[in-house]
Amino acid sequence: MTTPRERLHDHLQAFCDDTEAFIAGAVDGPLAGLTFAAKDIFDVAGYVTGGGNPDWKATHPAATRTAWAVQVLVDAGATMVGKTITDEITRGILGENPHDGTPINPRAPGRVPGGSSSGSAAAVAGGLVDFALGSDTGGSVRVPASFCGLYGLRPTHGRMPLDGLLMQAPSYDTIGWFARDATLFARVGAVLLQSQVVPARPARLVIAEDTFELADAAVAQALRPWVERLAACIGSSTTVRLAPEGLAAWSEQQQVLQGCEAWDTARDWIDQVNPRFSFEVTERYLQARAFTAADIAAAQARRDAIRQRLDTLLADGAVLCLPTTPFPALRRGERLSLRREPRARISMLTCLGGTTGRPQITLPLAEVDGLPVGLSLLGARGADEVLLALARELSVPSP
Amino acid sequence: MTTPRERLHDHLQAFCDDTEAFIAGAVDGPLAGLTFAAKDIFDVAGYVTGGGNPDWKATHPAATRTAWAVQVLVDAGATMVGKTITDEITRGILGENPHDGTPINPRAPGRVPGGSSSGSAAAVAGGLVDFALGSDTGGSVRVPASFCGLYGLRPTHGRMPLDGLLMQAPSYDTIGWFARDATLFARVGAVLLQSQVVPARPARLVIAEDTFELADAAVAQALRPWVERLAACIGSSTTVRLAPEGLAAWSEQQQVLQGCEAWDTARDWIDQVNPRFSFEVTERYLQARAFTAADIAAAQARRDAIRQRLDTLLADGAVLCLPTTPFPALRRGERLSLRREPRARISMLTCLGGTTGRPQITLPLAEVDGLPVGLSLLGARGADEVLLALARELSVPSP
Repeated sequence: MTTPRERLHDHLQAFCDDTEAFIAGAVDGPLAGLTFAAKDIFDVAGYVTGGGNPDWKATHPAATRTAWAVQVLVDAGATMVGKTITDEITRGILGENPHDGTPINPRAPGRVPGGSSSGSAAAVAGGLVDFALGSDTGGSVRVPASFCGLYGLRPTHGRMPLDGLLMQAPSYDTIGWFARDATLFARVGAVLLQSQVVPARPARLVIAEDTFELADAAVAQALRPWVERLAACIGSSTTVRLAPEGLAAWSEQQQVLQGCEAWDTARDWIDQVNPRFSFEVTERYLQARAFTAADIAAAQARRDAIRQRLDTLLADGAVLCLPTTPFPALRRGERLSLRREPRARISMLTCLGGTTGRPQITLPLAEVDGLPVGLSLLGARGADEVLLALARELSVPSP
Repeated sequence: MTTPRERLHDHLQAFCDDTEAFIAGAVDGPLAGLTFAAKDIFDVAGYVTGGGNPDWKATHPAATRTAWAVQVLVDAGATMVGKTITDEITRGILGENPHDGTPINPRAPGRVPGGSSSGSAAAVAGGLVDFALGSDTGGSVRVPASFCGLYGLRPTHGRMPLDGLLMQAPSYDTIGWFARDATLFARVGAVLLQSQVVPARPARLVIAEDTFELADAAVAQALRPWVERLAACIGSSTTVRLAPEGLAAWSEQQQVLQGCEAWDTARDWIDQVNPRFSFEVTERYLQARAFTAADIAAAQARRDAIRQRLDTLLADGAVLCLPTTPFPALRRGERLSLRREPRARISMLTCLGGTTGRPQITLPLAEVDGLPVGLSLLGARGADEVLLALARELSVPSP
């Protein structure tokens, strides 16, 4: 039997090579004829979900049911051709996995693919599949989409059933997906959201000035024309400073709250198995274990204030515009001490989606020195379709 | 080419299966005709020293020289037949290695072999070799010797050159060895210590009452007749309470000081490689990273006091008698939360050797429910030979 890597000519090391999971799509349906991949945190009946960690895989039984999201896509006609590499237990944002290998970023070889949905992003960017499922807890769809030059959505939290998903932090976990073009991206979205994507425009564009200041100057500059085009398209825009306290303070509360939830999710398994993790992953779990009740209370208060602030700023159904990541993909294999600051800076942008539960789409609109970087739109809770429609409209070349 | 496991019929998983390191012994010499194994932290020219961790192995070149201790044994006629499994980077006391596998304890299958010199102890206990080299920083020879029913020595700190050894914490690192009988144990010792082991008796036996109280009652009871026999053999004995502050306070200072040294040794490599460790190993590194200057100063003061206390108690060249471990080998695969207390209790005994730099021999004299447990003698600095001679004398059946 051929491995998924052989079958798909996977030169990107995007697919897990130790599972034969494959499900032929239904004969007809809105996605008939398309192929997709699923991050190896989605259950497929009969296979062990690996979660990017050999000890997770060795200590869990084969799934008895297929994850809701996979099944709904298969029922819509798409064929699931394999499982893709993920950061260990989704605990990473760069896409480097020492156990299973780090997928190649086809748009930036030598750079990380972004994570944790690294293999899904690489597989789509490299044309191995038409689209792919990922998940986004703290940025795991948005970051690889930005780094690999793809469309990616973190949907409204709670919008889709998470049955059959390896969970990290339930208050933050979402299912997302990737595609190379906005039209297909919206077609997949219609199936996953069980909805329709009809042309729609938000009331107003709100440009978060401090998020652009946080980005590298070259990134802000590369995104600027697209912000202007968006503003023109929507017809109304304002510029604001989001975080008087600074975006660092905004992201810290999510490090605390998401971290504590992730620790709660994993602690019993860790205690039982003493699993192997890369140093950085254990470090993050232990950091969370050390948070005090006072840390948590302060983080909760900050989270509530951020939610309130965004609710006020976007009360009229406006969408917020920000860089998806402050820079394009980092180099692979960077030292831990040189990764800390960039990782923190990424979180200052990605925390907006996780903290508010609002949908966020990233659009592969810009490049810096040939490296992709995404522009994000954060919408109204439940109005994921508006973001998909807007992306599709923007992708049509302007007259 | 056969692997060491095939060649030696290694049913114990004691040998590393990924190195062919083998050095025929000199034709004659005091150890001619004997075979030995070396823990995979000893360099053998032409091979990468694995250190029990795949990322260590992958990021280090082949050794260009053979470790001093290996060479001196080979020159004395012994043949090195292979490298043995070690806890990752010697950071463990139980002998469980998730990467390379956990050696079987031939004297207690289903129980851990003890570590970090796990494979060396298992190979000797299982009769695969005549003797084996290990290392002892915090107990890594003494504990597996106790758990596997072997003679083992932690020599006087600084007594042997450590060239070609993967270091953990230089103020504590020593080379040790294992054998099944006291006569061979002393023969090997004469070569490694470059000395002679002539009959000798210490001035007095000092029985450390609180160390026996720390042990399981069954262990204390099983060792008692041997303590009495030792006392009779030496001809003079006294009973003392070592640690008015409690042995927990005594061992904590070594956790701090050894931990900080181990972190200093590894930190740059960790920063560069982000290596995979079992959760517990990273936890220990991070615990050390968090110690403050005040923690360190307090630990140093305590260390000095312990050294002074032992120097006073043993001023006449007396040897201190204590259980090597408070209990026989633990079950394999125990939960982290259930290992913490036993690990801490082991340290309360093993810290005496590391803290004072004195030589400590463990003698495989007792059993509890069929499981071996060792009796230890802590001697005078530089008088390692006295311990070897005493062990040899005791092992002769009494008339």
